[in-house]
Amino acid sequence: MVLAGGIMNETEIICSERPKLKNPLCVVGLPGIGHIGRIAVDYLVHELKAKKFAELYSPYFFPFVIVHEDKIHTLRNEFFCYKSPKGRDLILLIGDSQTYDPKGHYEVSGKIVDFVKGLGCKEVITIGGFSTGRVTEKPKVFGVVTDASQSKELAKYGLELKVSGQIGTIVGAAGLIAGIGNLRGLKAYTLLGETSGFPIVTDPNAAEAVLESLQKILGVKVDLVKLKEKVEQMHEFIKKLSELQGQAMEGMQKSKKPEDLKYIG
Amino acid sequence: MVLAGGIMNETEIICSERPKLKNPLCVVGLPGIGHIGRIAVDYLVHELKAKKFAELYSPYFFPFVIVHEDKIHTLRNEFFCYKSPKGRDLILLIGDSQTYDPKGHYEVSGKIVDFVKGLGCKEVITIGGFSTGRVTEKPKVFGVVTDASQSKELAKYGLELKVSGQIGTIVGAAGLIAGIGNLRGLKAYTLLGETSGFPIVTDPNAAEAVLESLQKILGVKVDLVKLKEKVEQMHEFIKKLSELQGQAMEGMQKSKKPEDLKYIG
Amino acid sequence: MVLAGGIMNETEIICSERPKLKNPLCVVGLPGIGHIGRIAVDYLVHELKAKKFAELYSPYFFPFVIVHEDKIHTLRNEFFCYKSPKGRDLILLIGDSQTYDPKGHYEVSGKIVDFVKGLGCKEVITIGGFSTGRVTEKPKVFGVVTDASQSKELAKYGLELKVSGQIGTIVGAAGLIAGIGNLRGLKAYTLLGETSGFPIVTDPNAAEAVLESLQKILGVKVDLVKLKEKVEQMHEFIKKLSELQGQAMEGMQKSKKPEDLKYIG
Amino acid sequence: MVLAGGIMNETEIICSERPKLKNPLCVVGLPGIGHIGRIAVDYLVHELKAKKFAELYSPYFFPFVIVHEDKIHTLRNEFFCYKSPKGRDLILLIGDSQTYDPKGHYEVSGKIVDFVKGLGCKEVITIGGFSTGRVTEKPKVFGVVTDASQSKELAKYGLELKVSGQIGTIVGAAGLIAGIGNLRGLKAYTLLGETSGFPIVTDPNAAEAVLESLQKILGVKVDLVKLKEKVEQMHEFIKKLSELQGQAMEGMQKSKKPEDLKYIG
Repeated sequence: MVLAGGIMNETEIICSERPKLKNPLCVVGLPGIGHIGRIAVDYLVHELKAKKFAELYSPYFFPFVIVHEDKIHTLRNEFFCYKSPKGRDLILLIGDSQTYDPKGHYEVSGKIVDFVKGLGCKEVITIGGFSTGRVTEKPKVFGVVTDASQSKELAKYGLELKVSGQIGTIVGAAGLIAGIGNLRGLKAYTLLGETSGFPIVTDPNAAEAVLESLQKILGVKVDLVKLKEKVEQMHEFIKKLSELQGQAMEGMQKSKKPEDLKYIG
Repeated sequence: MVLAGGIMNETEIICSERPKLKNPLCVVGLPGIGHIGRIAVDYLVHELKAKKFAELYSPYFFPFVIVHEDKIHTLRNEFFCYKSPKGRDLILLIGDSQTYDPKGHYEVSGKIVDFVKGLGCKEVITIGGFSTGRVTEKPKVFGVVTDASQSKELAKYGLELKVSGQIGTIVGAAGLIAGIGNLRGLKAYTLLGETSGFPIVTDPNAAEAVLESLQKILGVKVDLVKLKEKVEQMHEFIKKLSELQGQAMEGMQKSKKPEDLKYIG
Repeated sequence: MVLAGGIMNETEIICSERPKLKNPLCVVGLPGIGHIGRIAVDYLVHELKAKKFAELYSPYFFPFVIVHEDKIHTLRNEFFCYKSPKGRDLILLIGDSQTYDPKGHYEVSGKIVDFVKGLGCKEVITIGGFSTGRVTEKPKVFGVVTDASQSKELAKYGLELKVSGQIGTIVGAAGLIAGIGNLRGLKAYTLLGETSGFPIVTDPNAAEAVLESLQKILGVKVDLVKLKEKVEQMHEFIKKLSELQGQAMEGMQKSKKPEDLKYIG
Repeated sequence: MVLAGGIMNETEIICSERPKLKNPLCVVGLPGIGHIGRIAVDYLVHELKAKKFAELYSPYFFPFVIVHEDKIHTLRNEFFCYKSPKGRDLILLIGDSQTYDPKGHYEVSGKIVDFVKGLGCKEVITIGGFSTGRVTEKPKVFGVVTDASQSKELAKYGLELKVSGQIGTIVGAAGLIAGIGNLRGLKAYTLLGETSGFPIVTDPNAAEAVLESLQKILGVKVDLVKLKEKVEQMHEFIKKLSELQGQAMEGMQKSKKPEDLKYIG
């Protein structure tokens, strides 16, 4: 990675190289309910052998570093690119973490939108979960647009466009990157995989449903047979990281001591 | 809307056009107790067929987007203008949300004052509620000034100028836009509609009383017969949005998980 | 007051005039335990007929405006100057409020130090309370220095210089203006009036003791007979304002609703 | 110290002189679990008679000043340098406090990395504790690297490199200075002294183990016989300061009053 300067009081993106991309489409899979987006985009990264070219760091992430495989890394989001032999190139975004901070959500999302725009990206798809309170065999995938003109195109891909007709919210990066992307002139929408919303760590079924839709939209073909196995591998890491962040959050709110060093092996 | 740049770490206003206005008076109706200002100014916007010309976004708003009528929008405040055939032109401000953040209230209010001053505005009226703890048939409207010289003029409109003689506070945008407006050289005051303060979502009676005063002050005439019907239509949206923001606030304070995507249809 | 610009996302000082002062000494009396400093400096302002020349506003103050005597004002600190016929000139600082925000304490204190330095001030005295847990007839006044070389001078004024020999803290503006003042090259120290620390609103005895010390230090003579009467007049205002800020603080931490307009007459 | 300007709304470092150092290595010992790093580096400072040359202040530290030995000082971190007669020069960093604020951890850590880089430093070692939940006679010292290539070198010093093979976190400065140091191109790693994690204030055994490792790494030799005595002297100060910060933290979260001046002698 190219080094960055500054004293880390603003979100920053460190680039190892600036890829030349043809009309790239950005797909965002950050942690969230059932980790649907994260699993789906992570799987795409592996199956498409996409190449990491940038990392995002933010002072609005949790104030700790991860020790994984006996090595420290600062909490980050990672940008990968895939140069398609025939179709559109892809920018794939995954990450350890979202920010815990309301204002941080705006800054991080704004930084991501700004960065991919600078790479020539005109379209961004974010992925999240849509809690229904019940388990389904065959989860639906909802397409929530920022501009009514997108509905016709999304209907072609078999997405559900009627979320409910009522008012709802999409919290965090999946919502804000789409919302801010739209304000910055990108074509932006969100795919929501139907999920129970029960306190499970990962929902591979919903991720699979999202991947099926994504393949149609992106014009790529990946083999989904290894998905469940891959999710099992990721499951422990994601679970542990979620717990550690949960403990840190609790610690930040309750701790009477100014700061503790915690190491949980 | 004209696109804006930047990474969304400061409140921003996006303008679709910069209206030329004659000695405009700005009326602010943002969410608050009984949603009195919001209802009253929203009604003016509709009845006067005022035209939207700008939107305000802030990283100090809740970190989610709204899904309404199957479409995403980022939480915002909206500026409308009304070009009066004979009297003064109006800038009308309404919005989904106020900030949840104390510092954000100052930044958002300061941004609004700065923006309307730049449009030639020299007078701003904000609207809020005054909780009395009892229900009244005929709510009063209090006029609270920032400069004693304004009292004589307001008395002409039949406003109550004696709030109580004691010390009180006006929390959030209704107070701060008037207060900061005054510091920036605007003629600024607040209309408070008398309301019970009971946990009701909307108070159409108080809004009606405020609208009656506003008509005298603004020199416009609108038909109030459709107000109740309009409030009924808005009621569900406002209630749902209030609940969602309440849940988000609670989630931000209690959540042990770093971030969840919540979609509540 | 001369108008200021900017969108109120940083602490600002608005000056009506820039007084020319001879070697001025700044005395800071902001709200705190027993409101000792506030009462003492407010009394000096009245007795010396000091003239207001500047106001400080901060986005780190509570997000509401005060309605007092049927008029709105934004929460503020106020700078007064007293041009001494023979001795040193004085800058006297009093205010409605301190910030509720830890980072805000640094910004507001830094702004105050920066401002008075710019007016040629080389010496600053801050005033606070020292809780002992018991009521005393004749409260002591402690002088806590930032530089050991100051002790000899303070001993001349009869101040207690041995606070306890142990470690303690001075929270908020009384501590930080002295601490930051010292870092910026000012001669800075704090007077702490001995007070019970019981939940009383105002402690006129401690304020009187501080005023006796201050007269020696400042080389001014004021009549203290009206002090008790003055404190009685201020008591209701201070009490109400403290309550309102307490409620706001609680509201900011507990409120599930995004924002309420509260008016408590 | 050379004076600094600015209104204290960003972390700042005040330098009394800019030392010329040969290939300096920076060792960071800030407060944390068992205060292991703080004790160890403080001891090095005394035994090596290292010279203070800079202080760090931050608006993200607690908003109070310390009264110690009847004198006020603002909460700070302190940089010392040791010019080695034969080996590498050292920068030693100790401090009263870490920040209580998540974003502050990034800013303070980023500022420290930026500063030592500017002094020609290419290597930084941070020190923390590794809680095991049990008391051991002979605590291990773990070396956690930011780059796998460092492991071979650390193995030479007898450090444990296998933390657990699982995922963990290092919270606060010990983690973030290493993590951000690595992002800025420094060779950075963390020494974690094995400690029980029981609520003890200081763990001299773990500090001694860390000092034994540090001597090998730094190529210095200090007499450890006075360590226990030194820790006993520091114990009361550290305990009191921890309590005061704990009370302040609690106060900041619970206080209903806007601000209290607390002095606890």
